[in-house]
Amino acid sequence: MRMYDIIQRKKRGNALTDGEIQFVVQGVTDGSVPDYQIAALLMAITLKGMTAQETTALTLAMAKSGDMLDLSPLDGIKVDKHSTGGVGDKTTLIVAPMVAAMGVTVAKMSGRSLGHTGGTVDKLEGIPGFETSLSMENFFATVRKCGICIAGQSMSLAPADKKIYALRDVTATVDSIPLIAASIMSKKIAAGADRILLDVKTGNGAFMKSPEDARELAQAMVEIGNTAGRKTAALITDMSVPLGFAVGNNLEIIESIEVLKGGGPADLRHVCIELAAYMMHLADKGELPHCRALAEEAITGGKALETFAQVVEAQNGDRAFIDDPARFPAAAVKREVTAVTDGYIREMDTEGIGVAALLLGAGRETAADTIDHSAGLILHAKVGDRVEKGQPLVTLHTASEEKANIAAEKYLSCLSFSDNKTEKSPLIHAEVR
Amino acid sequence: MRMYDIIQRKKRGNALTDGEIQFVVQGVTDGSVPDYQIAALLMAITLKGMTAQETTALTLAMAKSGDMLDLSPLDGIKVDKHSTGGVGDKTTLIVAPMVAAMGVTVAKMSGRSLGHTGGTVDKLEGIPGFETSLSMENFFATVRKCGICIAGQSMSLAPADKKIYALRDVTATVDSIPLIAASIMSKKIAAGADRILLDVKTGNGAFMKSPEDARELAQAMVEIGNTAGRKTAALITDMSVPLGFAVGNNLEIIESIEVLKGGGPADLRHVCIELAAYMMHLADKGELPHCRALAEEAITGGKALETFAQVVEAQNGDRAFIDDPARFPAAAVKREVTAVTDGYIREMDTEGIGVAALLLGAGRETAADTIDHSAGLILHAKVGDRVEKGQPLVTLHTASEEKANIAAEKYLSCLSFSDNKTEKSPLIHAEVR
Repeated sequence: MRMYDIIQRKKRGNALTDGEIQFVVQGVTDGSVPDYQIAALLMAITLKGMTAQETTALTLAMAKSGDMLDLSPLDGIKVDKHSTGGVGDKTTLIVAPMVAAMGVTVAKMSGRSLGHTGGTVDKLEGIPGFETSLSMENFFATVRKCGICIAGQSMSLAPADKKIYALRDVTATVDSIPLIAASIMSKKIAAGADRILLDVKTGNGAFMKSPEDARELAQAMVEIGNTAGRKTAALITDMSVPLGFAVGNNLEIIESIEVLKGGGPADLRHVCIELAAYMMHLADKGELPHCRALAEEAITGGKALETFAQVVEAQNGDRAFIDDPARFPAAAVKREVTAVTDGYIREMDTEGIGVAALLLGAGRETAADTIDHSAGLILHAKVGDRVEKGQPLVTLHTASEEKANIAAEKYLSCLSFSDNKTEKSPLIHAEVR
Repeated sequence: MRMYDIIQRKKRGNALTDGEIQFVVQGVTDGSVPDYQIAALLMAITLKGMTAQETTALTLAMAKSGDMLDLSPLDGIKVDKHSTGGVGDKTTLIVAPMVAAMGVTVAKMSGRSLGHTGGTVDKLEGIPGFETSLSMENFFATVRKCGICIAGQSMSLAPADKKIYALRDVTATVDSIPLIAASIMSKKIAAGADRILLDVKTGNGAFMKSPEDARELAQAMVEIGNTAGRKTAALITDMSVPLGFAVGNNLEIIESIEVLKGGGPADLRHVCIELAAYMMHLADKGELPHCRALAEEAITGGKALETFAQVVEAQNGDRAFIDDPARFPAAAVKREVTAVTDGYIREMDTEGIGVAALLLGAGRETAADTIDHSAGLILHAKVGDRVEKGQPLVTLHTASEEKANIAAEKYLSCLSFSDNKTEKSPLIHAEVR
């Protein structure tokens, strides 16, 4: 088998065989196929597409290119959740304790923030003492004790995906739906869960800008998961505005605790209940209406909050911060940005708001950057809201007046106004099973 | 300017600006753009195409990436000729002396053989003493003395093309018409001629299998040449059978001398007269019918043969071999292959016949291989000819019985027979100006 012929066949729009795809992934993993041939193939795939069978073969080959987590020593059905990333998306912090509180095991590897989106591991590390780099022993022990553990990716999961992703990132081949689906699912399958719920975000703050693209990606991933024997479902949820009001690490932990206490923003709460209900449904806890009731109960009964506090403690975090979020250190500078005109907010450039949070210190542009856990922003008005001149739009939290100035300008450039109230997008666009 | 954005724009089917193309070629030349990004761009170009303006910009940027020959110290209009390559294509050996004999300056850089096609420089090196690696001083002196010089590519012409071609060769991006056109024309423009005649071969022995592809390539190249201020025309000529009867270096020199003496195969003679007429027409020697008459005269008057002998002498070759081609050493083994059945030759796999010659020792598979100048084959029957069982089809010239066995089997596999006479393809398919 020759890489040249494989590139040639894909260039001509042919479907590659499972054997050809395994040959490519093996060559990527052991370094025997040069980067320029991989790059040419990735461009041909981006422009010519892949069939469902090809995408599944690529996913499985990448999943098997490194460690495959075996969660079978843990009792019960293990459910994982993955979000394609958004601004203010703190749902894992809320949903994972909710479902764990209702008896569904969550043994989860989470990612870090990059670019305009946040990462669960970064958010949790804002809690003093919280450890995300765990041994397998500790990971299993925490799951057994709390029904949940959220660790960083310490193992070598899907190394072929890591190499391929690095090449896609510099060859403009990131926006290929089969390649995105295979990348996400290879890591999910290697991470060992029995059931997978995907939260595919759509809107101007998501990687998938249109609901059609989001649905195509969701369908590709659900098919891969089910073919691989991991029962998978997806919700397509809205990211045309930030989710909730808080964007930034500690600010999002605090908002998550509010939701776990039964308060918090209505949009965030609604999306969390849906996600939790689907996860429980996937874990054979019953029909969706029943699972929604269980999700509500996890919050109203206080069980979810207690589970969250327990897992924080089990991972060496200071639970006093969960019991009293006022302990989180405040940012040096808090700047209220006000409306310069009257009107309804017509649209928010959500990705731009993610960049504003990044400029405040809440994110990282490159993997080497460090994060200011206190930095971020709290929205006071979202799409469809009426604001009067002088009314607060957002409060920026950051380390210096200079950063506040830059982010304030960026934030204002992300809003557009209108004289009439505009329709909001639905929170849940669709389900894919 | 970022390479990433350029790849992204081409991937989306946008036309690149001249500045973007110059940025890419500069990055290729100085090594600042990594191979994997070039490979991704080449695949995007192969699948999305390039406009005439983009192709011209790429050609000029590659031409300027190295030395640009300045032929202006030589008097008169300098005309170059380029063939896209075929089997038995010895036209340069005949046509260049023809037009030089009639007062058109030919200061030519020629290539070597690779794969199933031959190269003019290799053929000439079969003449004892003939030198193709010349200083610019010698090159100019020879042109001034004989009106012609045929040198190998000793200078660094279009080094960016060399790098890009090497990458195309391993990433299945060779068969892109804009990339082929830019590759050929960058070297022609760097080689300094004022007027360029292109011989674009079509048929199963050519790189362009269909006349439509050949015409598209010819049109692209003619447009580039004219835009670059080098008046350019193209003839689309047939390569669905080998040209003439001889394939192989010394055998082709001998056949060329036959044509220059007024004999030789009719098809070869016809194509040479057309090519020479177009070259003279491009060099302002008059209308085509007049130029055809001049071309005939160059042969019948013996001027072309004498010019050939003179340039061989000027390049240190032994002209006794031109005056008496019987001096060329014979191959150790001559094998006549005969027909095993009666019938008309319906089709010849011309590329396969080129491979048979290569197996006999006449060519090189990789640039490091050496050539057996005596090796090759002489056809005795071509498409449309009637053969009886036992009648000779071809004589193989080679160094060993073993090579003859292998090539005989290959040669026979290239022929198909029919009970009825089939139509031959026209020798000249079209002209493009």
